[in-house]
Amino acid sequence: MTRQALRVALDQGTGPSGDTGAALERLADRAHAAAAAGAQLLITPEMSMTGYALGPDEIARRAEPADGPLSRAVADVAARAGLAIVHGFPERDGERVYNSAQLTDAHGAVLATYRKTHLFGDLDRGAFAPGADLLVQADLHGHRIGLLICYDVEFPETVRAHALAGADLVVVPTALMAPATAVATLLVPARALENQLHLAYVNRCDGEAGLDYVGLSTFVAPDGAELLRAGSQEVLLVADLDTEAARASSAEPSYLEDRRPNLYRPLTR
Amino acid sequence: MTRQALRVALDQGTGPSGDTGAALERLADRAHAAAAAGAQLLITPEMSMTGYALGPDEIARRAEPADGPLSRAVADVAARAGLAIVHGFPERDGERVYNSAQLTDAHGAVLATYRKTHLFGDLDRGAFAPGADLLVQADLHGHRIGLLICYDVEFPETVRAHALAGADLVVVPTALMAPATAVATLLVPARALENQLHLAYVNRCDGEAGLDYVGLSTFVAPDGAELLRAGSQEVLLVADLDTEAARASSAEPSYLEDRRPNLYRPLTR
Repeated sequence: MTRQALRVALDQGTGPSGDTGAALERLADRAHAAAAAGAQLLITPEMSMTGYALGPDEIARRAEPADGPLSRAVADVAARAGLAIVHGFPERDGERVYNSAQLTDAHGAVLATYRKTHLFGDLDRGAFAPGADLLVQADLHGHRIGLLICYDVEFPETVRAHALAGADLVVVPTALMAPATAVATLLVPARALENQLHLAYVNRCDGEAGLDYVGLSTFVAPDGAELLRAGSQEVLLVADLDTEAARASSAEPSYLEDRRPNLYRPLTR
Repeated sequence: MTRQALRVALDQGTGPSGDTGAALERLADRAHAAAAAGAQLLITPEMSMTGYALGPDEIARRAEPADGPLSRAVADVAARAGLAIVHGFPERDGERVYNSAQLTDAHGAVLATYRKTHLFGDLDRGAFAPGADLLVQADLHGHRIGLLICYDVEFPETVRAHALAGADLVVVPTALMAPATAVATLLVPARALENQLHLAYVNRCDGEAGLDYVGLSTFVAPDGAELLRAGSQEVLLVADLDTEAARASSAEPSYLEDRRPNLYRPLTR
């Protein structure tokens, strides 16, 4: 597969929590701005289309199937703006509700839907079932994209699994709150470096139900360098995958090749 | 087991490369200085007693069994100074030579000998066989100590395995060279935070065979905070295990408890 350039936009912010109509309007605005800046992929935060800390009952009421009306509305935004979108939403599958992220391409086709596998505290456990599949990937412009959500990325096993499955870029919608800034500044860049891949981490920066989301969205190159780093304000950030850094890092000692998998069995028990 | 306070000394520096007699004299000097500062454990860099980039033939000539004369000489230094020591040396076992680190207690008893499992490039592969055991641990003053060496710590699987096996402190003698400073500043603090344990990373800061060791030794708390951080000069650093940070981190969401081991099978293939 030929790798083309890939320009990525990080949408640090969300619509008003609990107002999906306003979130869709805002998404259309950001999608057009990102496309005008030449971006081919727009990434939004965890549960970007509904709000996150709404409580289990409200989450359950708003939950929709992966191919429901919200998914079709986002697909319409993507097709109109002409770029791929990752959005977050509560996904209904029968009686179960998942904390999900969906990748839709520039023609409005759903490429992948990922259900958060590592649930964070009562906030997640009260509202969501844990996803059963860690590796959800799709190809976009010749790049293999892996999806994770928030707390997932704090576990090195998750990004490692994506790297071993060939991911070039791991996309992580998040809702990181104070005081855990070291997740954004330390763990996230480490995940890119230790796996020699790109990683985009896209956070909220507002408040919700007493939670203080810290922003600090970032786009990290395979050598651990921060191509983008947001502060604590609402912002649309745009940058290209650093294909030169990817090439250079593949010429260095390869972490993936130098692993000793037979020594890692304790990690699966 | 009761956890007592543990004061740790990091010896950033080594004796003259290739001169084990001078390295032993220097070790005795540092051991007495560390003990005078109240330290109970002195950690020295990778291959601290012989030099590292000596070439395969010289390494093989200097290699000794884990209970050989060098081990006994270090044990004598430890017993005289009255503190535990971690030193690095080329270990002979029949025809094989390993890149090893040994923990000796304050009475001169050898508690553990670890053989580097992740070999770095031609420098290691030309001179050493890879260790077969990842998990080498020992108890010191009620703290479970795990041993790793240099490149090992760049793989998240290694420290995770130690954390799952109950390590409170992972000790990492290293010989990190330019330009890989991000290993010391990014990956090493991430390892401590993602496993909620203490980690001591002790480097050289001189030059050897064209290699430029970058110093930056550090002692990181379970919340990712740097208790100590050296620059690029020779220095003896002393600090206590942050038992308060360890307690606080054990009260937070536990990364070890929130793992999904059945999803991590790709890591062992």
